Amino acid sequence: MKDMDIKAVFIGDKAENGQVYRMLLNKMLDEHLGWRENYLPADLPAISEADKSTTSYLTTRQHMMEVLDEVSERMRAGSIPWHSAGRYWGQMNAETLMPALLAYHFAMLWNPNNVALESSMATSQMEAEIGEDFAKLFSMPNGWGHLTADGSIANLEGLWYARCIKSIPLAVKETYPEKVKDLSDWELLNLSVEEILEMIETFTDEELDNVKAASSRSGKHIQELGKWLVPQTKHYSWMKALDICGVGLDQMIAIPVDDCYRMDVQVLEKTIRELAIQHIPILGVVAVVGTTEEGQVDHVDQIVELREKLKDEGIYFYLHVDAAYGGYARCLFMNEAYEFVPYASLAEFYEEHHVFHHEVKIERSVYEGFKAISEAESVTVDPHKMGYVPYAAGGITIKHKSMRNIISYFAPYVFEKSVKAPDMLGAYILEGSKAGATAAAVWTAHRVLPLNVTGYGQLIGASIEAAQRFREFLDQLSFTVNGKTIEVYPLNHPDFNMVDWAFKVQGCTDLKEINRLNEEMFDVSSYMEGDVYAERFITSHTTFTQADYGDSPVAFVESMGVPQEEWQKEQQVTLLRAAIMTPYLTDDNIFAYYTEAIKHAMEEKLREVLA
Amino acid sequence: MKDMDIKAVFIGDKAENGQVYRMLLNKMLDEHLGWRENYLPADLPAISEADKSTTSYLTTRQHMMEVLDEVSERMRAGSIPWHSAGRYWGQMNAETLMPALLAYHFAMLWNPNNVALESSMATSQMEAEIGEDFAKLFSMPNGWGHLTADGSIANLEGLWYARCIKSIPLAVKETYPEKVKDLSDWELLNLSVEEILEMIETFTDEELDNVKAASSRSGKHIQELGKWLVPQTKHYSWMKALDICGVGLDQMIAIPVDDCYRMDVQVLEKTIRELAIQHIPILGVVAVVGTTEEGQVDHVDQIVELREKLKDEGIYFYLHVDAAYGGYARCLFMNEAYEFVPYASLAEFYEEHHVFHHEVKIERSVYEGFKAISEAESVTVDPHKMGYVPYAAGGITIKHKSMRNIISYFAPYVFEKSVKAPDMLGAYILEGSKAGATAAAVWTAHRVLPLNVTGYGQLIGASIEAAQRFREFLDQLSFTVNGKTIEVYPLNHPDFNMVDWAFKVQGCTDLKEINRLNEEMFDVSSYMEGDVYAERFITSHTTFTQADYGDSPVAFVESMGVPQEEWQKEQQVTLLRAAIMTPYLTDDNIFAYYTEAIKHAMEEKLREVLA
Repeated sequence: MKDMDIKAVFIGDKAENGQVYRMLLNKMLDEHLGWRENYLPADLPAISEADKSTTSYLTTRQHMMEVLDEVSERMRAGSIPWHSAGRYWGQMNAETLMPALLAYHFAMLWNPNNVALESSMATSQMEAEIGEDFAKLFSMPNGWGHLTADGSIANLEGLWYARCIKSIPLAVKETYPEKVKDLSDWELLNLSVEEILEMIETFTDEELDNVKAASSRSGKHIQELGKWLVPQTKHYSWMKALDICGVGLDQMIAIPVDDCYRMDVQVLEKTIRELAIQHIPILGVVAVVGTTEEGQVDHVDQIVELREKLKDEGIYFYLHVDAAYGGYARCLFMNEAYEFVPYASLAEFYEEHHVFHHEVKIERSVYEGFKAISEAESVTVDPHKMGYVPYAAGGITIKHKSMRNIISYFAPYVFEKSVKAPDMLGAYILEGSKAGATAAAVWTAHRVLPLNVTGYGQLIGASIEAAQRFREFLDQLSFTVNGKTIEVYPLNHPDFNMVDWAFKVQGCTDLKEINRLNEEMFDVSSYMEGDVYAERFITSHTTFTQADYGDSPVAFVESMGVPQEEWQKEQQVTLLRAAIMTPYLTDDNIFAYYTEAIKHAMEEKLREVLA
Repeated sequence: MKDMDIKAVFIGDKAENGQVYRMLLNKMLDEHLGWRENYLPADLPAISEADKSTTSYLTTRQHMMEVLDEVSERMRAGSIPWHSAGRYWGQMNAETLMPALLAYHFAMLWNPNNVALESSMATSQMEAEIGEDFAKLFSMPNGWGHLTADGSIANLEGLWYARCIKSIPLAVKETYPEKVKDLSDWELLNLSVEEILEMIETFTDEELDNVKAASSRSGKHIQELGKWLVPQTKHYSWMKALDICGVGLDQMIAIPVDDCYRMDVQVLEKTIRELAIQHIPILGVVAVVGTTEEGQVDHVDQIVELREKLKDEGIYFYLHVDAAYGGYARCLFMNEAYEFVPYASLAEFYEEHHVFHHEVKIERSVYEGFKAISEAESVTVDPHKMGYVPYAAGGITIKHKSMRNIISYFAPYVFEKSVKAPDMLGAYILEGSKAGATAAAVWTAHRVLPLNVTGYGQLIGASIEAAQRFREFLDQLSFTVNGKTIEVYPLNHPDFNMVDWAFKVQGCTDLKEINRLNEEMFDVSSYMEGDVYAERFITSHTTFTQADYGDSPVAFVESMGVPQEEWQKEQQVTLLRAAIMTPYLTDDNIFAYYTEAIKHAMEEKLREVLA
C-alpha cells in the first residue's frame, strides 16, 4: 500500500504525534552534535569546563534563558491555533508537515547557503531535485525550477523572465541586425519563447553576451514590449511586480472575471485583438490557479487555446501561471508514473487510491485548467501554501531550462570555471543567499509525500473534500438569535479548497447592513479582539469591490435576495473566508464534532453582534 | 557585569554546549506541545490511538523515518565544518547563535507569516522591534527597518526606494504642475529626499495617490533619473538589481577603487561633475561597508561630505550603503545608550568592556566610514552574516520612516481599515509572505546580544582581533617544501575581519604560475575535492581581475616582488580568502593550537600541489 497516511505526518492538532516528533528531533540533534564532536576529534575544544563555570558564562546563559522565556510567552500569547482540527477556518494556514519541520531544524544546525554549491553541497543538490520535482508536477520535461522567498518574488521573477526574453529580438536587431533582417518590429515582438530560444542557440557566447547587454537589462526596450494582462481580481503582488521591474502599472490591463471569478477569456481575446489592431503587443498574460480570495481556477486551457489560435495570426504572448496557492493540487491528477490521468478515469483512480471518503465533484473545467499549466512558460508554486511546509518557501518553475541563460549573471566569488554552471544557483535567480534548510524541508516533504496521488494527492484531496462538505454544511445552516433568523449564503461552488460565505438576517435586503454584520462577525472571530487562544471559531474575511470585481458579485448578491440596485449603491460585499487546510475533516466524527462546535460558537458570536 | 560571554551563546565547535541546547530545545518544544494540547482541551483529538496502530500509519511513519535518515546522511556527508574553531578559513560562515536557532525552531512550530499582523501577532511585533534596533544601530532616530530574504533583495529594495522617490518630483510636475512651477527639470531631479518628503507632506491623500500613480511605478521617468554609481568591484547583486528594477545596466557607472580597495572619492567627484556638466543627473551612489572580497570599508564620510558640498551647487544624489556584511560591526562603536563613541575614547572604551585581548588597530578612516552611515537614505544589513543568525535573514534600514509611503501598496485581504497601516508589512516591502520564525530568531539574538559594545560588540571584536592576528601570523609564515621556499603574502591591512593572501614560491615572478599555485591550493582546500569532513584546512578564494579592479592590485602584486608587467600581461591575481568569523580565537591557547595545526595542513597541501 503506497498511499500515505496523513495522520502520521503532522504533530497533530492536540500534539498526538508530539512524542514521535520529540524522539526524531532529539535523534537528529544527536546526529548533528556527534558530527561536530567527531570532526577531527583530536582538535582542542574551544570551550573548556573551566570556561563554563565562570561568572560571565553563567550570567550570559541565564540572560539567554530569560530572553527565551520571553520568546515563549510572546509566541504562546500571540499565535493563532491553526493546528486545530476544526476551530480555525481562515487564512491559508494549517499545521505544517512534521518531516519538513524536522529537516529544517536539522539542516539549520549546519546553516547551508544555497547561493552556491561551495556553501551547501547537500542542500544545493536537494534544491536541484526539487526543481526536477516541480518540472514533473507541471509535466514540463525540459523544465526547471527552484525555491524562492515567496510567491511575490516568484511572480516578480516570472515577469522578469517575460521582460528579458521578449526583449531579446529587439536586442538582436540592435546588435546584429542582419540576423533578423527579414522580420518586422511587430514580428520581433511576437516571436514565441521557443522561437527566441532557438534563435539564440546559434549564437556564439560573445554574441549572446552582446545581445543580453542590449536586452531589457540595459534599461532599454522595456516600454516597447507591450501590455501585461492580469485578472481584474489581481493580487497586489502583480502591481508590485510591475512597479519593481520597470514595466510599470501603465502597462497593466485588468481583464474582468466572470461570475465564477475566473478570468473572462472572451474579453481577454477581444482585448488582445483590439490592442493588435493598434499594433500594441502583449508582453504576457497571467492566469491564476487558486485565486487568493475565492480559490478559483482560471481557464488556463482556453487561454492556451487562444494563444495557439492567435499564433497563427502572428500574435504571441508569454503565459505565466500564478499557481502559488493551487499548484500542488496538480498532484491530485498525477499517477505514480507522473502521468496526468484522463478525466474519464478519475473516479476509478480516486477509488483505487482512497482519496475521497465522501462524494466530491471535480469539475471538468477545473481539471482542464490544471492540465494546461504544462503549456505556460513559467509557474509560481509555493511549498509554504499547499505544500504544508513552513515559511518562507515559495517556488517557480520554467518550461525550458535554457530560459535561465537569458537572465543569468555570475558572481566572481562563487564562479569557479571548473564548476558546472548549475552549481551556482545565485547566477540564475533573482535572489542571492538563501537558506539551504528550506531546501531540506521541501525535499523531505516531497520524499515523504510524493507529488502524485499517493502523497500530496491524499492531503489535498482531504482538504478539497472538507471544503465541499463545509460548503454543504453552511448551505443548510441557519440560526435563531434574539427572535431573528440568520441565514448563511455560501459563494458559488468552490473550484478548490476555499469557501466564502455571508451571514444575513432573514428578510434584510440592505447590503450595507449585511456587510456590517459580516465585518462585525470577523471582528469577533479573529485576531482583532486580542485573545485568539480563547476563541472557539476563528475566520478571515474578504471584500469584493466593484473596482476589483466589476459586476461579477451580482449573482451572489441576488442569491441572498438582495436587489442589484443595492450592489450598485454599496459597490462592495464582505464575505467570511476559509481556506480549508486542516487534514483531519475527512473523518466523520471529527467533521460532525467540529461543525457542531463552531455552529455553537457562531451562534454565540451572532448573539453578541446582534445584541 | 553586562558584557556578554560569547562562549555561552553557541553550541560550540565541539558541541561543548550541546547539552544546554538540547535541554532548551526540549523545554521549548514542551511549551509548544502543551499549548496545542491546551487549546480548548475538551475538543476531540483528530488522531486516535487506534489511528496510530493502523498499518497505513505505521508504514507511513516508517517511510518518513527512512527519508529523515537519508536527510541525515546527506547533510553529514555534504556539509562544511565551519563550526570548527580554527580549521575553516573561508566564506562568511561560522556556527550561528544558539538562541537564534532555538527561537527559530520554536516559532516555526506555529509557522507565523509576517506579511500581516493577522497571521503573526507575536512575530510581527518582533519584526517591528528589529526595525527599531536597526534604526538605533545606524543612529537614525526617524528611521525604520525590516527583514528581507537576503542582501540582494535588500539592495534591490534600496534601489527601488531611490528610483521611486527620485521620480516623485517629475510625477508632481506631470499631475500638479502648479505645485512645482518654479523649478526646472534639473532642479526637480536634484531635490533631496528630505525636500521631496517635505513637499508631499502637504498633499491630500488623493493627490499623493495621483502622484504615486505617475511616479516610476507607472513605468515612466525611469530612464530620466540618471546614473547609479557603484564601486568598480561591484557585487554582482548590483547588476541584477539594476536589471530587475528597470533602471538598467546602461545607467550603471563603476567608480574605480584605490589601492586599499575603497571607492576613490576623488574620481567619484570628478565623475559626478562631468555628468552634471552634460546635465545628466545622478540617481544615486552606493558605498560599501565590508566588501565581499576584501572586507574593506568605503569612505562613507567623504561621500557624505561630497554630497553636502554638491548640494550647495544644486546637485544631489541618493546614498545607499551596502553594509550587508559590515553593518553589525557598528556595534563596536556603540555604548549602552546607543551613542557613537568618540574616536579618542575608543581605547578606554574597549578596555572597559574587555573587547580586545591583543593589540587591535581600528583606523580612523574605518571609524569615520562607519560613523557616517547615519547619513545614508538606506542601508542593507544582513543578520545572516555578522549577525550570526541562520539563513535567510537579510535586512534593510531607511533613514526616514515616511519614505515607506512612497512605495506602499495595499492588499485587500490583509487590509482592514480599522487596523493601523504598520500592521501590514506586506504593503511596505518588496516581498510578500515571510517567515515570522526569522523575526523570532533575529529578535532573540538582538536581545541576548544587544546591538552595542556589550553584545555584538564582543563578538565582532573577537572576529576583528582574530583577523588582525591571523594576518600577522600569515605575514611571518613560510614553508620549505621539496627544497623550495614558499612565502606567504597577505593583502593590505584589513579594514574588517577578512584576510586575503597568496602563496608564492620564493623567487618566482611569473604571475600565471603564482595564480596557478593558489588556485590549486584552493582546489585541495575546499569542497572541490569532495570529502570536506576530512579536510584539515579549508578556505575560499577570490580573483581580482583588471576589469573589476583596474590597476588597484598592482601594489600588492609588486609587494610579492612581481613586476607590474606581469600584472599587465595576466590581468588577474588569485588570492585565498578568509572571512574570520569563529568567535574562539581570542584565546591564546586556541589561536596557537589552530594556527600551528593549519600550518601543518598547509604544508601538506603545498607538498601535494608542488609535487
